[in-house]
Amino acid sequence: LAFLDCTTVDDLCDAIGSMAVRGAPALGAAGAMGVALACVRGDDIADAARRLVATRPTAVNLAWGVDRARTADDPVAEAVRIAAEDVERNRAIGAHGAPLLDDGARVMTHCNAGSLACVGYGTAVGVIRAAHEGGRHPSVWVPETRPVLQGARLTAWELGRLGIAHRLVADVMAASLMASGDVDCVIVGADRIAANGDVVNKVGTYGLAVLADHHGIPFYVAAPRSTFDPASPDGASIPIEQRPPDEVTVIAGHRIAPANTEVENRAFDVTPAALVTAYVTEDGVQRS
Amino acid sequence: LAFLDCTTVDDLCDAIGSMAVRGAPALGAAGAMGVALACVRGDDIADAARRLVATRPTAVNLAWGVDRARTADDPVAEAVRIAAEDVERNRAIGAHGAPLLDDGARVMTHCNAGSLACVGYGTAVGVIRAAHEGGRHPSVWVPETRPVLQGARLTAWELGRLGIAHRLVADVMAASLMASGDVDCVIVGADRIAANGDVVNKVGTYGLAVLADHHGIPFYVAAPRSTFDPASPDGASIPIEQRPPDEVTVIAGHRIAPANTEVENRAFDVTPAALVTAYVTEDGVQRS
Repeated sequence: LAFLDCTTVDDLCDAIGSMAVRGAPALGAAGAMGVALACVRGDDIADAARRLVATRPTAVNLAWGVDRARTADDPVAEAVRIAAEDVERNRAIGAHGAPLLDDGARVMTHCNAGSLACVGYGTAVGVIRAAHEGGRHPSVWVPETRPVLQGARLTAWELGRLGIAHRLVADVMAASLMASGDVDCVIVGADRIAANGDVVNKVGTYGLAVLADHHGIPFYVAAPRSTFDPASPDGASIPIEQRPPDEVTVIAGHRIAPANTEVENRAFDVTPAALVTAYVTEDGVQRS
Repeated sequence: LAFLDCTTVDDLCDAIGSMAVRGAPALGAAGAMGVALACVRGDDIADAARRLVATRPTAVNLAWGVDRARTADDPVAEAVRIAAEDVERNRAIGAHGAPLLDDGARVMTHCNAGSLACVGYGTAVGVIRAAHEGGRHPSVWVPETRPVLQGARLTAWELGRLGIAHRLVADVMAASLMASGDVDCVIVGADRIAANGDVVNKVGTYGLAVLADHHGIPFYVAAPRSTFDPASPDGASIPIEQRPPDEVTVIAGHRIAPANTEVENRAFDVTPAALVTAYVTEDGVQRS
């Protein structure tokens, strides 16, 4: 477990750009903290806000956190408040979502929507965690989530620490697990939810939603209200970040493809609202 | 480019078990060559045949090649014949399949069903290659194919050598590419095809078939007749090999998940015949 100290807005922008800080709710708090940092240092706040928002175009929480701190009377106090609220919101999401999981439910998630994607507790993992704490004995399928492997590196680590049963799989195995009846529901986080309910989340989410629909498996999205963006009418209107090709071609410093192989690396995809069984927010469960 | 000399049946069994030799058609020839090797060395042929077939349970071509050599008057000549025939069969598959690709078709494949999965030319890649040689300008989406990365390591390398345009993606990106209209068809190989047309192939194939169906994209399976197993009534009757967990948790010697993380590693999955648009064999194109 390592902590990264960011003492300038540039440090923080680098940490966000390299995904040392990632996950929509965590980005909301980090954005607010960045404005607070600029304020404490006497930097140009408007410039800091602009640079912070530009680091990652897809997660709306980042802009939301930056704006909340920027327009507050006391940006530092507001940033601290956002961070504290995030944990409380996640606990509320967990409490509302836990009853969706039957006793012994075998849940598939994607990427990492746990405490490492938030200030604490987690959104999708928060629901699983609340079910676990409530004695519902969930077990979790953890797709590794290429290219950045947040499932293998983060979700497996979190679930291990929490004592929640889980098994890691390559992303390609999800369909087979659904076909063999080993998945009772899918629950994921979100980076932005459009006004019509379309969900933008880590690439691979849409494929899981289609597969869940094909197999009659409920597909849940757990996210705080700050993830809902009334300014985005639908998924098609949301910018999808393209990430560097090396994320795909290099794993832990080891090149896995021939030199100069062309790569497409879309970081997110769009899941149409019609494929979402329900949204779980701090306000409750909203059926699609 | 490296060559591996196998001078004993044990060497060959190790090469097959570790996937230094892999791909259903290549396994057919390798199995026959293993029987020929036992014959030349004066080993017990029945024992060699048993050990060879036991290395990989799913690809039926392995048992087919072993049996053809074992029951031939001259196993060595038969093994050489199988190898030579494989290339001719693949050229016939390519010739029959190429007209399925429109000019400029953007084709998605999976894993490696190219010359490195065969004695030469390739099955699914053979169809793309024949289309390329026929001036149809195909371009190829290459999913990396975790856990063993045959797409990134083998298919990208083959297509590069052949001068066929291609782009590598993480497996999770397939759904997004289909949704954005960037995939005109999917073409894969097969490890075994049941009597009812169900296809067992590299894990991830079934997911692509469901996604292709959802998006109205044709899904083709290219394989020699030796892949069709009349003794397997349907996909459910075909054994699915489980591979070691380290294939998922260790990439190029680097551990990507916490120690002791439990893993499920199914090497293959089953695509129901209903999701297959057509089978391409050396005999022609058979619509499902």
